[in-house]
Amino acid sequence: MSVTVVGSIAFDTVATPFGSRERMLGGSAVHFALAASFFGEVRVVGPVGEDFTDEHRDVLRRRGVIGEDIERVAGGRTFFWRGHYDYDLNTAHTDETQLGVFGAFEPKLSAESRACEVLFLANIQPSLQRAVAAQCERARFVALDSMNYWIETAREELWDTIARVDCLLLNDAELRMLTGEASLVRAARALMGRGPSAIVAKRGEYGAALFTPEGFFALPAFPLESVVDPTGAGDSFAGGFVGSIAAHEGANQGEITHAVLARAMAYGTALASFNVEEFGTDRVARLESEEIVERVEELQRMTRFLEEPVPLRA
Amino acid sequence: MSVTVVGSIAFDTVATPFGSRERMLGGSAVHFALAASFFGEVRVVGPVGEDFTDEHRDVLRRRGVIGEDIERVAGGRTFFWRGHYDYDLNTAHTDETQLGVFGAFEPKLSAESRACEVLFLANIQPSLQRAVAAQCERARFVALDSMNYWIETAREELWDTIARVDCLLLNDAELRMLTGEASLVRAARALMGRGPSAIVAKRGEYGAALFTPEGFFALPAFPLESVVDPTGAGDSFAGGFVGSIAAHEGANQGEITHAVLARAMAYGTALASFNVEEFGTDRVARLESEEIVERVEELQRMTRFLEEPVPLRA
Repeated sequence: MSVTVVGSIAFDTVATPFGSRERMLGGSAVHFALAASFFGEVRVVGPVGEDFTDEHRDVLRRRGVIGEDIERVAGGRTFFWRGHYDYDLNTAHTDETQLGVFGAFEPKLSAESRACEVLFLANIQPSLQRAVAAQCERARFVALDSMNYWIETAREELWDTIARVDCLLLNDAELRMLTGEASLVRAARALMGRGPSAIVAKRGEYGAALFTPEGFFALPAFPLESVVDPTGAGDSFAGGFVGSIAAHEGANQGEITHAVLARAMAYGTALASFNVEEFGTDRVARLESEEIVERVEELQRMTRFLEEPVPLRA
Repeated sequence: MSVTVVGSIAFDTVATPFGSRERMLGGSAVHFALAASFFGEVRVVGPVGEDFTDEHRDVLRRRGVIGEDIERVAGGRTFFWRGHYDYDLNTAHTDETQLGVFGAFEPKLSAESRACEVLFLANIQPSLQRAVAAQCERARFVALDSMNYWIETAREELWDTIARVDCLLLNDAELRMLTGEASLVRAARALMGRGPSAIVAKRGEYGAALFTPEGFFALPAFPLESVVDPTGAGDSFAGGFVGSIAAHEGANQGEITHAVLARAMAYGTALASFNVEEFGTDRVARLESEEIVERVEELQRMTRFLEEPVPLRA
């Protein structure tokens, strides 16, 4: 089953306590697509400038990602982000942003991209997200990412867009900011009342939680000795999460139940954990599918406990 | 199997966004003992002043907690804490502390308290904790709580005490502060090299994680619509955690394996979740054991995912 992602393609300059790297290939659509590529066909829609070369395109191509809708803007520069992390790797500090071709981006989807059955709207302007969703009429599962910036500056458009998707992914603070609810349970319920039937709360080093009308599910982040570069972790999570839902759909023509979404959280968690082990796309670009299988199995073991109860007294 | 806890008995004045209450019964030993009382016999060792009345003693008595080693100091005042929480309920802000009789506390254990097989050293001066541990020679499982204050002011004594216990419970930031490791995996390994065979990382609204030589386990906090008063959540967690280990021991004379500790995390999580639903000890004091069983079963459902993998492509 085909997945389309619309989002940024970027060059990232990143410094962490473990080193620094210049102008690495990055961006939400790239991190998502590489992660989702393990589950089936992925098409990327996004703009690049003349500084985007075949070498960059090959990173995606080697993972089978279809880049026909990567729009190369003549005379333009690719979106650039420079940031750093201190020892608290949960918080990215932005030092410089150059929108470049991303500033005037208007998504243009080919017939093949429009024909996707699963759509991921990475973090871009909410009304652009809505326009893309409207074009993908066959999509059976549409997931949306956003951020505090859009909650502050395009709140109404964001709510309008949320009303049209099946699943919303945000971090805890953004879910609270968007709904004005201190309780995440209430925030999720408020959002489910407005359209989506699944809310994913991203929690950085603490993992992720899922709310659906059927209930609650949560997983810790996969424990790692060292996190080298958290950039793109959220989009890699989304790639594993959405990708595994597409693979389930393709294999079984099945319903996207709470159980399917919960399992998808494990694939998201696994992909995010690989992403942060090295700078940029390095780790996921050379990942093997057996490694994903192993890590998901390890997550099973790390979250299971004895069913036999201990004796209680009144 | 008998559990002894040594720690504070307190009066707490607490304000949260949901209300405020004055001079409620609290303290680490009290919250621990009430939670652990569902699993077997619990003895409390700690000092109180003349302001501690039969009414307070009855809260413990009704849950079957043995208060013979609660030392009433003539002319003294019970430890008093006043604090508040803002919308971020993970952070307690201390407004006033009056040590009272707790300032000169020297634990005196009766023969029965010393004969415990499971010992919980709640958050007090590390050398007092060590002295208590030395008296409880029969204890098969000793767990220790501490805090940033002791890491800063009594670091060497704390390390000495840690070397003598089986299990250490701290929050993530304290584990990092104590070991100087940014990675929690490395922090836990460093600590396991110094004595304890189990490290519990307490994570507030994000739940808790367990590290043992056999591996990693984590559980989310139980999702609640409203958290009214987080005071004592960590000690209630410890009460459920340590209490369930004692019950397992008593029932099975079994080894305290990784699997037993992982299940204990679920009981700790359940008890902590009840604690925070109301002010002070109100909720746990009237809790029924069936409610604990139900919540642990719900935690099973909230953390389990389909074993059947999705198909991956190379």
